[in-house]
Amino acid sequence: MNKESASMKTIQLRLPYLIFLGDIEDPTLAKTGAGLVQWCGEDVVGQLRLPGCPISLGLEDVTIDLAVTFGAKSLVIGVATVGGTIKESWLSIFAHALEMGMDVVNGLHTDLCQFPELVEAQARGGGKIINIRQSPALLPIGHGAKRMGKRLLTVGTDCAVGKKYTALAMTQALSNAGVKATFRATGQTGIMIAGEGIPLDCVVSDFLSGAAEIISPNNEPDHWDIIEGQGSLFNPSFSGVSMGLLHGSQPDALILCHDAARQGMSTCPEFGMPSLSKCMELHLACARIVNPAVRFIGISINTSSLSEEAGKQYLDKISEETGLICVDPIRQGCHQLADALLDEAHS
Amino acid sequence: MNKESASMKTIQLRLPYLIFLGDIEDPTLAKTGAGLVQWCGEDVVGQLRLPGCPISLGLEDVTIDLAVTFGAKSLVIGVATVGGTIKESWLSIFAHALEMGMDVVNGLHTDLCQFPELVEAQARGGGKIINIRQSPALLPIGHGAKRMGKRLLTVGTDCAVGKKYTALAMTQALSNAGVKATFRATGQTGIMIAGEGIPLDCVVSDFLSGAAEIISPNNEPDHWDIIEGQGSLFNPSFSGVSMGLLHGSQPDALILCHDAARQGMSTCPEFGMPSLSKCMELHLACARIVNPAVRFIGISINTSSLSEEAGKQYLDKISEETGLICVDPIRQGCHQLADALLDEAHS
Repeated sequence: MNKESASMKTIQLRLPYLIFLGDIEDPTLAKTGAGLVQWCGEDVVGQLRLPGCPISLGLEDVTIDLAVTFGAKSLVIGVATVGGTIKESWLSIFAHALEMGMDVVNGLHTDLCQFPELVEAQARGGGKIINIRQSPALLPIGHGAKRMGKRLLTVGTDCAVGKKYTALAMTQALSNAGVKATFRATGQTGIMIAGEGIPLDCVVSDFLSGAAEIISPNNEPDHWDIIEGQGSLFNPSFSGVSMGLLHGSQPDALILCHDAARQGMSTCPEFGMPSLSKCMELHLACARIVNPAVRFIGISINTSSLSEEAGKQYLDKISEETGLICVDPIRQGCHQLADALLDEAHS
Repeated sequence: MNKESASMKTIQLRLPYLIFLGDIEDPTLAKTGAGLVQWCGEDVVGQLRLPGCPISLGLEDVTIDLAVTFGAKSLVIGVATVGGTIKESWLSIFAHALEMGMDVVNGLHTDLCQFPELVEAQARGGGKIINIRQSPALLPIGHGAKRMGKRLLTVGTDCAVGKKYTALAMTQALSNAGVKATFRATGQTGIMIAGEGIPLDCVVSDFLSGAAEIISPNNEPDHWDIIEGQGSLFNPSFSGVSMGLLHGSQPDALILCHDAARQGMSTCPEFGMPSLSKCMELHLACARIVNPAVRFIGISINTSSLSEEAGKQYLDKISEETGLICVDPIRQGCHQLADALLDEAHS
């Protein structure tokens, strides 16, 4: 079997991580770090906080030097900042990490290579600056050839409706059921969690589907790649990314993600939300171009805006309307969706 | 009226041009130059050939120095080369043009800034190196807000089926009919012809629809932007670009382009061609997300593979099947399509 490595041209991170929290005071800014603890906590040696930082991920506080003795290979910036800026006071810590041979992994918009002291530390120490918002160079154009193995893509009615979370929870549910499954990352946080991937929104558009093909390469016939979706075909800001990912992924199965509280398109206030049925219809019409057998195996809804009871009713109603399994992946997990996928695959 | 300038973030070229043919021997490699002569010949002062070059565009042979006296502002590389390479022997000519204050406009893959002698000449002379395969910096994310003026986008069953030609011929036909119309360029040759535009395939994918919005800004209510399409929703290599352009353009009208000889998808040999009706159906489903009133006003087919008579029969058959005007824009021009657009607009 021609089993390619997904590593050929994806971003590659070195595990385990030390998570940098800096001196943030707002817990919502530590979402990236919290995601790492939730989804790859076994690969995290601790957290690094500056004096006075009130936020904690519940991890041990670890210095750079101690982290190195624990085997940490990367210092991962686990916080968001307004405008994606880097604070002056963080630079000496990043420089020290680089000098100690650790990579510094940055998902913020600011390119760390613009700071000469970090570039110099990188040259001295052997650690690398890794900006996850930069596309790998030399991506190919998509060729559309059928690949071995199975693929599931999470798609959405809009941005930020749970596509990454659903893909992660689905990968976990399949693994728990003894199925070979790999989460495939297409965004910054997903790449940190998986340790590899390509940030699709940063790829030059000619190479969108080529990047998606590399993210999910040939694999064993009974292996599932669970691919993190991006944007939405219905969000005009990002529909190009969504389409390139859909066609490059050649999914066998789709899960539709939605947020029960979403009233309008996140980045395009003039546009309303599509109905779930219309959304599935267009996704199938587009996805059938690359795989006529593609189908939706279920729906994943963020019902956090509703009470437990109202959320359950909401899910039941949609399940009845669509005839598909419908879960809130945070409240119910994804084992029902995994069962639905496996039932179909065996039928 | 808030009439924005399309120039804000598009590539801007300075007219008139001197067309550089170098020392090519194959006339098919001079397609770019020939397109410039056909579509913006009034902005071309002549051609520059190296000794022994057997190809001619039928223009006067003009040196850099003479071109400057004619007012030429840009030396445009009007030839293609294998792999997009630049020949060593061309560099002294480009350097001289830059020193004389002319821009050197390059649509080939090789970045001219990699040649120190050209960068130095640029610094000395005031002319600029303009690589058309580089996206303008600082593009915005698409916002989807409705813009003033009318828009027509040419879309296709595949790449290279006449979308640029149709858009140019359509712009000319509308202008001939006294309608305000502007060709909007999204690819290398189109940008050279129009003197401005954005090469969409080079844009970072997050900004695809934002770039399309800038290419076709607010305009007078009775003005038509005729936008050059890219790729195809049915070509998995480039469907992301096509989708971003479709949603960013917010077209009021579409023309479907096709090549009668095309048997399979150009860059994806495993994929067959869609039927024209299926192709129009998916384009409408996607385009209605941004403009529910969008419609196809006609079909443009390259019938050069057929005899004049067989081509006519082919067009008549498709016209009968679809109920739409159907022309070969090279054999019949686009005046019937222009009439169809205006009839609808006035009805």
